[in-house]
Amino acid sequence: MLSALDLARRIEMGELTPVAAIELCAEAIAAREAEIGAFTVLELGRARLIAEARGAALAAQPLRGLAVGLKDIFDTADFPTEYGSPIYIGYRPRADAAATSMVRRAGGIVLGKTVTTEFAHLDPGKTRNPHNFKHTPGGSSSGSAAAVAAGMLPVALGTQTGGSVIRPASYCGVAGFKPSYGLIPTVGLKCFSWHLDTVGVFASSVSDVAFAAEAITGRPLRIDGTAPAAPRIGMLRNPPWPEASNEMMTAVEIAARTSITEGAGVIDIELPSICADAFRAHGTIHDYEGYQSLAYEYDHHRDRIGPQLRILLDRAASVTPEAYDSARRTTRRARQAIADLMSEIDVILTPSAPGAAPEGLKSTGSSTFNRLWTLMGAPCVNVPGLASDSGLPLGVQVVGRFGRDHGTLAAARFVEDAIAL
Amino acid sequence: MLSALDLARRIEMGELTPVAAIELCAEAIAAREAEIGAFTVLELGRARLIAEARGAALAAQPLRGLAVGLKDIFDTADFPTEYGSPIYIGYRPRADAAATSMVRRAGGIVLGKTVTTEFAHLDPGKTRNPHNFKHTPGGSSSGSAAAVAAGMLPVALGTQTGGSVIRPASYCGVAGFKPSYGLIPTVGLKCFSWHLDTVGVFASSVSDVAFAAEAITGRPLRIDGTAPAAPRIGMLRNPPWPEASNEMMTAVEIAARTSITEGAGVIDIELPSICADAFRAHGTIHDYEGYQSLAYEYDHHRDRIGPQLRILLDRAASVTPEAYDSARRTTRRARQAIADLMSEIDVILTPSAPGAAPEGLKSTGSSTFNRLWTLMGAPCVNVPGLASDSGLPLGVQVVGRFGRDHGTLAAARFVEDAIAL
Repeated sequence: MLSALDLARRIEMGELTPVAAIELCAEAIAAREAEIGAFTVLELGRARLIAEARGAALAAQPLRGLAVGLKDIFDTADFPTEYGSPIYIGYRPRADAAATSMVRRAGGIVLGKTVTTEFAHLDPGKTRNPHNFKHTPGGSSSGSAAAVAAGMLPVALGTQTGGSVIRPASYCGVAGFKPSYGLIPTVGLKCFSWHLDTVGVFASSVSDVAFAAEAITGRPLRIDGTAPAAPRIGMLRNPPWPEASNEMMTAVEIAARTSITEGAGVIDIELPSICADAFRAHGTIHDYEGYQSLAYEYDHHRDRIGPQLRILLDRAASVTPEAYDSARRTTRRARQAIADLMSEIDVILTPSAPGAAPEGLKSTGSSTFNRLWTLMGAPCVNVPGLASDSGLPLGVQVVGRFGRDHGTLAAARFVEDAIAL
Repeated sequence: MLSALDLARRIEMGELTPVAAIELCAEAIAAREAEIGAFTVLELGRARLIAEARGAALAAQPLRGLAVGLKDIFDTADFPTEYGSPIYIGYRPRADAAATSMVRRAGGIVLGKTVTTEFAHLDPGKTRNPHNFKHTPGGSSSGSAAAVAAGMLPVALGTQTGGSVIRPASYCGVAGFKPSYGLIPTVGLKCFSWHLDTVGVFASSVSDVAFAAEAITGRPLRIDGTAPAAPRIGMLRNPPWPEASNEMMTAVEIAARTSITEGAGVIDIELPSICADAFRAHGTIHDYEGYQSLAYEYDHHRDRIGPQLRILLDRAASVTPEAYDSARRTTRRARQAIADLMSEIDVILTPSAPGAAPEGLKSTGSSTFNRLWTLMGAPCVNVPGLASDSGLPLGVQVVGRFGRDHGTLAAARFVEDAIAL
């Protein structure tokens, strides 16, 4: 993989040019993209021209001219933006999304758009898992996770509404960072659920996602440099824990054990009972808002919507405002309960997904370990580094308190370092 | 003016057809639009065709085939959508906004797009105040307020980020309803500030806006029928009250006095001191988010942005994430303080604007009486019915608690009835 932080440092030191960094991506793309299919559109020639013309200026900016991939639900005025849907084939938005502009303002070069499931829901795109082409890369940010895993990009952006950053990051063996809700604006992204959609970052390690997130947002998020303090970790074994595979359970236990060895405090915690209601509330909010957000597509192009999304929208039409309001109230209560739970710990350690990437490309896997945290707006990090017996990546998830993104990233790096020792 | 509720009842009873209701709009448009300039685009022929082809089906739906105008920041796949900006001349979005779909799902016929200030900020469009063409109609929802005031539409939608629903409603002498933040989704609207932008409704009276809001949202909001209970009203005289004209002060006092006569309890209240900070926080959030939301336009077309917005965006580039986060924390504290303040009252009575519509078309007036309530996410209603010595409308504002939209509308109708007696 390409380390964004390493490339940026070398560019900053004058040891590498932005053009040469683009060439590293180009080499990996030439070798791997045909089999992986991470991109919907790719403009290497244009990226080279930008790096040549503006390389010196870009090298002085936070992203230092690094190539960035954008999930194809981010509007881009200079690339087709198809939302993974046949309804939008060839669509060229008039403007960039806010996050697209943030990448460019930070000195990133948009190299291409990455494959998304249809409207960032479940119906999959063409992407294969770089670790085994018979397995899903996860979704909905399939292409962003796979492109980073294959060394084709140092940084890619995606979004999470259920588990669409943490799950593909786990399946593909890269670091994934879903920040606190709202940290990166969703303006100009195709909306599914305005209370859930959250922009996230993929890169090769926790330090790399933190670097990229700091560069893009202008917030102090980097955690490279001095070793992070030992965190107080709460380990979550109750539901949905039983859904985790034996291999995943072992991975989380390894992460806990090695963290203890390195000095972390690890205690067992249980979710407050309200969280079972909140888990269901996620579905209610997701469906109700999706039915509003995709109203035009559903009302005018229902027959061109994929089977899984069509079934959801057919059903979602009957979610009442009362059920939705109740789900929102449950969410507020659950957030308070989680804040209370976390008063004595820094982060929660839990699986990123039920197990390694499932075989087959018809499903992108389950978000059962992610939906609650998306609803809570909590910062989540997929920590890579462990693998199944068959060599597929197994990620563990570090969940922090809302608004404590830096601390969550630091704790995730602590766990990542502990696993690697 | 055309009463949406009256037209809807007559259609429901079979006394009027949707086609005939469209013709009432057409007559007023023929008589007045040339001078007022409320529309950016108008499709009377198409509206007639829809009413003729689908009138019976529409008559059975909540909006009963009534004509609706949409502020030209609502995306529409079948009308140009120009956001009040030369950058978007001729732009035709690929999809409808969620609120556009809600109007259509409710059986409304979109008759046209209404004039907005540039990107719903301050640089004005062409619209004149129907009560005096030398005066502003207010902004940013200029066309929606003016079209309803001139009897050209029974219902129009707008948005409020500062005071863009309540102020033009006051200046034009119509009812304006800015619901609780988030009640109507902003998906597919041109975003200025995602924590502030709120979709609102214009109609001829409080009962009419409540009818339209219920029809569009599917929520129980109607307050016609039995007379509303006498509310407990808090009257707000401290800042920014001194900015109100003598005529506006008198209007609010008349509203209070007549409400007392009809049985309401009215007490003087003072804003908690945190509200002065919150007032400033509105500006910080507005500017910071506007600089992200309009990043593409600013970075690529700065010279085609109007003078007031350009100055704002130039300045907004330097708002830090720390200042923004602090403004968000202030907002949370102020919301709690306002909730405490309102524990003993149902609504707050305060001016809708500093006075009647100012002379001149270069400014759309001041949102000083609106910005705090937008930030609080509180439901607000402009109650029409009073006028200045020169015959210009003076609206009074009824502000409720977040989420208590029905109660706020009911209290506003109580005040409206009291004024009229």
